[in-house]
Amino acid sequence: MDVARYLNECRDLVLQQITETIPKTSRYRPVLYDLVLDYPMREGKALRPALCVAACRALGGRLEAVLPSAMVLELYHNAFLIHDDVEDGSEQRRGAATLHRTHGVPVAVNVGDAMLAMTLEPLLDNIRVVGLGKALRILRTIARMARESAEGQALELDWIRRDRWDLDDTDYVRMVYKKTGWYTFMAPLLVGATAAGASAEHLGELRNFGAVLGVAFQIQDDVLNLTSDEGGYGKEIGGDLWEGKRTLILMHALRQASPAERDEAIAALARRRVAVEANGSSSHDFAGAKTARDVEMVRSLIERRASIAYARSVGMRWAHRAAVLLERTRGWLEPSVHRAFLESIVEFVIARDR
Amino acid sequence: MDVARYLNECRDLVLQQITETIPKTSRYRPVLYDLVLDYPMREGKALRPALCVAACRALGGRLEAVLPSAMVLELYHNAFLIHDDVEDGSEQRRGAATLHRTHGVPVAVNVGDAMLAMTLEPLLDNIRVVGLGKALRILRTIARMARESAEGQALELDWIRRDRWDLDDTDYVRMVYKKTGWYTFMAPLLVGATAAGASAEHLGELRNFGAVLGVAFQIQDDVLNLTSDEGGYGKEIGGDLWEGKRTLILMHALRQASPAERDEAIAALARRRVAVEANGSSSHDFAGAKTARDVEMVRSLIERRASIAYARSVGMRWAHRAAVLLERTRGWLEPSVHRAFLESIVEFVIARDR
Repeated sequence: MDVARYLNECRDLVLQQITETIPKTSRYRPVLYDLVLDYPMREGKALRPALCVAACRALGGRLEAVLPSAMVLELYHNAFLIHDDVEDGSEQRRGAATLHRTHGVPVAVNVGDAMLAMTLEPLLDNIRVVGLGKALRILRTIARMARESAEGQALELDWIRRDRWDLDDTDYVRMVYKKTGWYTFMAPLLVGATAAGASAEHLGELRNFGAVLGVAFQIQDDVLNLTSDEGGYGKEIGGDLWEGKRTLILMHALRQASPAERDEAIAALARRRVAVEANGSSSHDFAGAKTARDVEMVRSLIERRASIAYARSVGMRWAHRAAVLLERTRGWLEPSVHRAFLESIVEFVIARDR
Repeated sequence: MDVARYLNECRDLVLQQITETIPKTSRYRPVLYDLVLDYPMREGKALRPALCVAACRALGGRLEAVLPSAMVLELYHNAFLIHDDVEDGSEQRRGAATLHRTHGVPVAVNVGDAMLAMTLEPLLDNIRVVGLGKALRILRTIARMARESAEGQALELDWIRRDRWDLDDTDYVRMVYKKTGWYTFMAPLLVGATAAGASAEHLGELRNFGAVLGVAFQIQDDVLNLTSDEGGYGKEIGGDLWEGKRTLILMHALRQASPAERDEAIAALARRRVAVEANGSSSHDFAGAKTARDVEMVRSLIERRASIAYARSVGMRWAHRAAVLLERTRGWLEPSVHRAFLESIVEFVIARDR
């Protein structure tokens, strides 16, 4: 099973769909739609549309039945990336400057909103593609996904904003289930399977599989954020430490630290990357800003406590659980290249380097 | 016809709907849903839901048939306000600090996204309320509205970002048609009338009425931005000059200015309010920032050229055209308190002081 090839084929199909959705001669092309295409055209994995296509086709559904929905998931993903990059103050995305760095926060927020706005018409056109019942169930799934993602994001932003560290691995898993799991795995699998006409019972099994795999995926994402080489990963290495993200890695290091180390690390993490609100009023003074030395200190603590190895082992346990859940679908999800893709993706999630 | 009372009654109904939509005991209440309620609970006019309700009831539709859609319009409006405030770097909204000033840009962007996410489920539940056909047509209208708004916003942001002044009143009207007209007048009227089962022909007439009234409304909004007293208006007085908004007022003043005055004003307007991107990298140095003296100079030019009076007269012409278009609907839109509200709103749009 060539995972990369399957991903690439889905990516090409979905990019073509997005391009066709955009009005060709619109006067809003230079001011809006060229920017809408920016992130999707960068080297992304297109994991979400591929999962959606695979779930549909593994169940005997047609490619045409699922492509518009797969495109919508990719639009949502890229809209979230743009807004997340603004929210996290991220500098790089897919190997280039983030949209708000190049075009400013105002334009970036609006481009994200435009992409969200662009999702509704294809989901309504879906009625002609998959029929009314399926189209409405897909709309329901997307609605749930959008809400879950916003709740998960709210939780994470709140932890950072309030300097909350009274958290354990369960809190992390709950946040990730909502922030990552819903829109990266559960919704794509559910939408694809719905397009193919899966039963409620089978949808439930796929959903559990996706929820568990989502945790493994996010843990590996956190690991990559600290261990990747810049070129392949596409984001700023160590960005999570700059942004104050609560990860299994960091929470493990803080648990294992001496009280003095812990206090020092938490003080460093509480400092913010120099950032001023868009209206010009700085919410923190530059003198108290987080420095490269702060980040280096925390990184060194993580190394001394072998916290990356800890997170890797937890991630592998989640991936193993996902593999078991997928194995259980064997009774109704017959062997095919599409099922093989889903099986390989479990491996890919923890072995990937980007 | 007591316009204020009609607005207030609609506002109360819609706020109740929004409150009921939010999960009561959710753990996401403090981190997300309390913030979702912030802007709606401030003293807003609730103009959009009132227009929606009036259009529906004037056509003989039931209040219950239109309330969920009216709520969705208010959610969209408030989501746009939150994101617009981030995009414009606005300081005040409805008499208090903007959401991003109180909670930071990251939280504000996510709260806006959450409100957009919250619109989809009520629009699907609408099928049970108004039937499938109407519910789908309402969804189509909302989809169009979201896209038009993003395009209009993109146009305005582009003009500001590129320091474009090669614009005339026609450009302004096109931008306003998309940025304001669609979601403030056209969509509310169309959605309300659709819920009541209006014909395509009647929808077209209401749409034209809304498009024209939207221009009058935005012109008055621009006038209020310069002439209001702080308390009633709720936004920062002169904020448009700080934010570099292209208004009829400003474009008139620049047309009437001497070449030297024009150069001086454009140079001042090109300077930005001190603002640094969320990632900390400043896109403009503080030394070149716009000052109160810059804004005062432009304001004085506007005064000397009587540009506010010019904009008022143009606004009144648009309002008059709207009144004529509404008058033409007399053949099929019978007299009622709801029709009377629509008639009064034309007057209100140019007479309002907030």
